[in-house]
Amino acid sequence: MKKHNFSAGPSILPEFTIKNTAEAVINFAGTGLSVMEVSHRDKEFMSVMDETQELFRELLEIPAGYQVVLVGGGASMQFCMVPYNLLNKKAAYLNTGTWASKALHEAKFFGEVVEVASSKDENFSYIPKGYEIPEDADYFHITTNNTIFGTEIRNDLDVNVPLVADMSSDIFSRPMDVSKYGIIYGGAQKNLAPAGLAFAIIKEDILGKVDRPIPTMLDYQTHIKNGSMFNTPPVLPVYSALQTLKWLKQEGGLKVMEKRNVEKSSILYDEIERNKLFKSTVKNVEDRSIMNVCFIMNDEYKELEKDFLNFSIEKGINGIKGHRSVGGFRASIYNAMPKDSVEWLVQTMQEFEKKH
Amino acid sequence: MKKHNFSAGPSILPEFTIKNTAEAVINFAGTGLSVMEVSHRDKEFMSVMDETQELFRELLEIPAGYQVVLVGGGASMQFCMVPYNLLNKKAAYLNTGTWASKALHEAKFFGEVVEVASSKDENFSYIPKGYEIPEDADYFHITTNNTIFGTEIRNDLDVNVPLVADMSSDIFSRPMDVSKYGIIYGGAQKNLAPAGLAFAIIKEDILGKVDRPIPTMLDYQTHIKNGSMFNTPPVLPVYSALQTLKWLKQEGGLKVMEKRNVEKSSILYDEIERNKLFKSTVKNVEDRSIMNVCFIMNDEYKELEKDFLNFSIEKGINGIKGHRSVGGFRASIYNAMPKDSVEWLVQTMQEFEKKH
Repeated sequence: MKKHNFSAGPSILPEFTIKNTAEAVINFAGTGLSVMEVSHRDKEFMSVMDETQELFRELLEIPAGYQVVLVGGGASMQFCMVPYNLLNKKAAYLNTGTWASKALHEAKFFGEVVEVASSKDENFSYIPKGYEIPEDADYFHITTNNTIFGTEIRNDLDVNVPLVADMSSDIFSRPMDVSKYGIIYGGAQKNLAPAGLAFAIIKEDILGKVDRPIPTMLDYQTHIKNGSMFNTPPVLPVYSALQTLKWLKQEGGLKVMEKRNVEKSSILYDEIERNKLFKSTVKNVEDRSIMNVCFIMNDEYKELEKDFLNFSIEKGINGIKGHRSVGGFRASIYNAMPKDSVEWLVQTMQEFEKKH
Repeated sequence: MKKHNFSAGPSILPEFTIKNTAEAVINFAGTGLSVMEVSHRDKEFMSVMDETQELFRELLEIPAGYQVVLVGGGASMQFCMVPYNLLNKKAAYLNTGTWASKALHEAKFFGEVVEVASSKDENFSYIPKGYEIPEDADYFHITTNNTIFGTEIRNDLDVNVPLVADMSSDIFSRPMDVSKYGIIYGGAQKNLAPAGLAFAIIKEDILGKVDRPIPTMLDYQTHIKNGSMFNTPPVLPVYSALQTLKWLKQEGGLKVMEKRNVEKSSILYDEIERNKLFKSTVKNVEDRSIMNVCFIMNDEYKELEKDFLNFSIEKGINGIKGHRSVGGFRASIYNAMPKDSVEWLVQTMQEFEKKH
């Protein structure tokens, strides 16, 4: 039976990425060696690293003055690296969910943190608007897509201080204006590569302004100066990331991705609206994520939650159990998710509705 | 032509590991999904993580009171995590090479660092002995195997303060007495897994004694409390690590590995002694590494260095160019390196000798 992988992350990757990685595990770039055992200083891998950074630039139209950094680990380490590198006195954070809260928590190790707004009062079911950012904040941090709660900031904000965005789960999902950001970072394991790789797109002139000494590996300048080769990078995940970027380009780039993502999410949101068994967990339509579609049983059908989960598993649908802090279901429909699989989920919801 | 991979790291892995990883990239544990796209919270991966930690314990005979931590990144981040977690006032370091120097450098961000001894005076061609460790040091740090210089501390030292060892390049190469160490850590990309994974074996009671607040991801206790699942671990490298550990067990464990490693390195050292073209870079025989065999051209044959390198490449020998700080050649013969390949290198050295 075909499996439809709706996991929130690690999550579905393009077949192109999986197939090419499997081949490279046996024979990388015709070297006769596995991508797991080649030196990161070999010319074949050096060009993988270069090409990966170039495709970041090309696909996201990254302007001059920015650097692309690729490092081992995930976004959680970036929660600490961002304030280590940027927070002198005060930082402003928007609290839109679990990951935003974790990022905010780490910043407190380094200075004063102002939570400019929070949607915690309604279990993060909306994106706060109309807040004020202190003019003397060193930066303003947002989490653009909240995987657990299914909300997303889908426009590039205009703010009065450097804007730092965790885009772990919606990078490459739409064209964007990188020039509005100071740092864009994330873990790679949603729209890009297997887990174990993080990226940071950094406006160079925002660095070097803090007084504290920064340990070498936590200093973004270390990685910039060394082209992300200061230490051994996670070779295989970088190789896989390159495959995904090549696939993105081949498919037509980020405009095409956005069109598809809007279409796929609309199909699912329309069904959630129509189907009497389900309802969305997101309060405002404009805050709904095109990456993670969260929904729960309507009040009168609450007892069917487990039944629907089991029914979906029987249908080859993987990973739609919602996070424990929301309950219900979460369909993660990243770039690599085909429309067919979304339609299959909709059909499954309709079949289940007919049964009840 | 068969390739013989003598790279220093990332480096040769067992065929068992490569083959099983390639299969799991297509279909992981019969799930119908790639190991690159399964959730780290799926039961199939949870048991991979558990089994990996259990095999660490079994193969290294780790006693009670120790925890095994697996995290994203490599040893370079551990250079910073060790003093973050342990250095209150003073730390002692043994300087045996490039990586030992880097570890020492990071500790200086956190307190006073005493270099108890260094072999820098003779380009790190020996392991210093007979040094004194300050009694009030919070810990004593060593790098057991110096990949660049081909020296190794192959016994478990008895010292008067907690012993911390970077074993990136010789973990699992011999049976050892873990009870003599406070922390054993390393990157996985030599004897264990593809790059992007670090391990730390930690005696629990040495933690919690520093006054400074520790950012969440840099705190070993975070990873211990969460069974190395606080954040998304590098799923594929962990899977590959498990394959290598299974292979190690299957082959007979660490006693067998040590026997093989001693035999393989002896074959090579014997040839270096015998062959008039070459000489070892390591001053004392007892300091010679069984993992990285470094050698250079004898003085009168210096001009043949490039020729031998090219000749070895023609013979399918990969990665024996020495590090720029030593020159010459370095044959890395980790656990997965078959005796046949070492013999092939010896034969190549003999053929080259006959030509000149």
